[in-house]
Amino acid sequence: MYELYIANKNYSSWSLRPWVLLRGLGIPFDEKLVPFLGGVGANWDAFRTFSPTGKVPCLRDSDTVVWDSLAIAEYVAEAHAGVWPADRVARAWARCAAAEMHSGFMALRSVCTMNCGVRVRVEAPDAALRKDIARVGELWNDGLDRFGGPFLAGAAFSAVDAFYAPVAFRIQSYGLRLDEASQAYVQRLLDLPAMREWYAAALAETWRDPEHEDEAHRAGTWLQDLRAS
Amino acid sequence: MYELYIANKNYSSWSLRPWVLLRGLGIPFDEKLVPFLGGVGANWDAFRTFSPTGKVPCLRDSDTVVWDSLAIAEYVAEAHAGVWPADRVARAWARCAAAEMHSGFMALRSVCTMNCGVRVRVEAPDAALRKDIARVGELWNDGLDRFGGPFLAGAAFSAVDAFYAPVAFRIQSYGLRLDEASQAYVQRLLDLPAMREWYAAALAETWRDPEHEDEAHRAGTWLQDLRAS
Ligand SMILES: N[C@@H](CCC(=O)N[C@@H](CS)C(=O)NCC(=O)O)C(=O)O
Ligand SMILES: N[C@@H](CCC(=O)N[C@@H](CS)C(=O)NCC(=O)O)C(=O)O
Repeated sequence: MYELYIANKNYSSWSLRPWVLLRGLGIPFDEKLVPFLGGVGANWDAFRTFSPTGKVPCLRDSDTVVWDSLAIAEYVAEAHAGVWPADRVARAWARCAAAEMHSGFMALRSVCTMNCGVRVRVEAPDAALRKDIARVGELWNDGLDRFGGPFLAGAAFSAVDAFYAPVAFRIQSYGLRLDEASQAYVQRLLDLPAMREWYAAALAETWRDPEHEDEAHRAGTWLQDLRAS
Repeated sequence: MYELYIANKNYSSWSLRPWVLLRGLGIPFDEKLVPFLGGVGANWDAFRTFSPTGKVPCLRDSDTVVWDSLAIAEYVAEAHAGVWPADRVARAWARCAAAEMHSGFMALRSVCTMNCGVRVRVEAPDAALRKDIARVGELWNDGLDRFGGPFLAGAAFSAVDAFYAPVAFRIQSYGLRLDEASQAYVQRLLDLPAMREWYAAALAETWRDPEHEDEAHRAGTWLQDLRAS
């Protein structure tokens, strides 16, 4: 049985990706939730006990340690159908889009850090954030048009959707506005049973990390906190 | 025939990865070198004509556009042996290490930007840079020990070596010191025919980007410029 190490569901966007991929495809795994101890850097010693980079997610398959979200997708794809689209062209597109997220969208990731349970209105997105949001919309529309939807690379949910799953929570939390087709895609992601399960668990968490909370406060006008207290 | 879009060989670390992978494995391709127009952002309009992210590298295989270095490795791996190690455990490790580079080592990448033809002495690496260098050494030693070398994931050069090829040039340019096994590995990379070919072409380039040059100057004490003028 796979063991998947993740951190707090409210905050950990990288953990969400393989979690929602495995859950969405019905691939069984043991969840090992190791809460953050604090902001960036504070988790190094604790996370290094299971992951060589001191980061989550990390997948263990008996002796094999797979310590990065994209490598986890490829590892699981070797043993299970459906991780990537079956069509070769759709698969190439899906891998590009997932890799683009893996290495990019720095403004979106740093200004609108994932915080599933809060509602913040971003008043004046700066140029870098606007560029990231525009590119997300362009990319999603390209995939949906090219492969016919309702998922990014065709009819079935695959790893590329999992890689953009945290963006759906960010759009919801920060009230970001995209075009209609993109907003409808966000709603389809949020409605997935695996996403609803993650979201409910995130709202139930009571632990707060001051660094993550500050980031959300700095992003705009604080509207609401839906989390358990 | 694949078409591989890249930028200046002296500067473009992401271009080097798929280029040295294809060349190192003897996979034929047409090189399309599109020089940078300036620093980050200045290339958007020009690069958008062939790449949806406005970035290099970008691979074209007739109508299929593969716009990210890691996605290029996976795309090519579907058609050619040797891109990833044949052994399943070595392949999982190689993908993790490549993905770690793809998304990380920000201090190393920003302080010691690739500039093949210069020699700069980094006087006092800050904590973030020291941490990145330590992790590179740890990772390389882990791979070399685990799979027996002389390459990171075993006897054969593969995509994971290609992903660390720019680090070899950085270590050479900035005089960074790693442990003996790591330094020997750097030398093996630099001695590869494909790396020597890239390096010779980089030294022959006469175009200079002020932003990249400033970055190299800021990194430490300027010692030497080996490039054609
Ligand atoms: N490239 C990694 C990124 C993983 C990552 O940055 N994880 C964050 C949590 S979402 C982390 O563990 N941070 C620990 C820390 O900053 O101390 C992947 O794709 O898995
Ligand atoms: N994640 C991309 C990164 C590509 C990238 O950042 N390329 C740089 C050159 S090394 C670029 O094209 N920059 C253009 C610009 O900044 O204007 C990949 O792995 O291919």
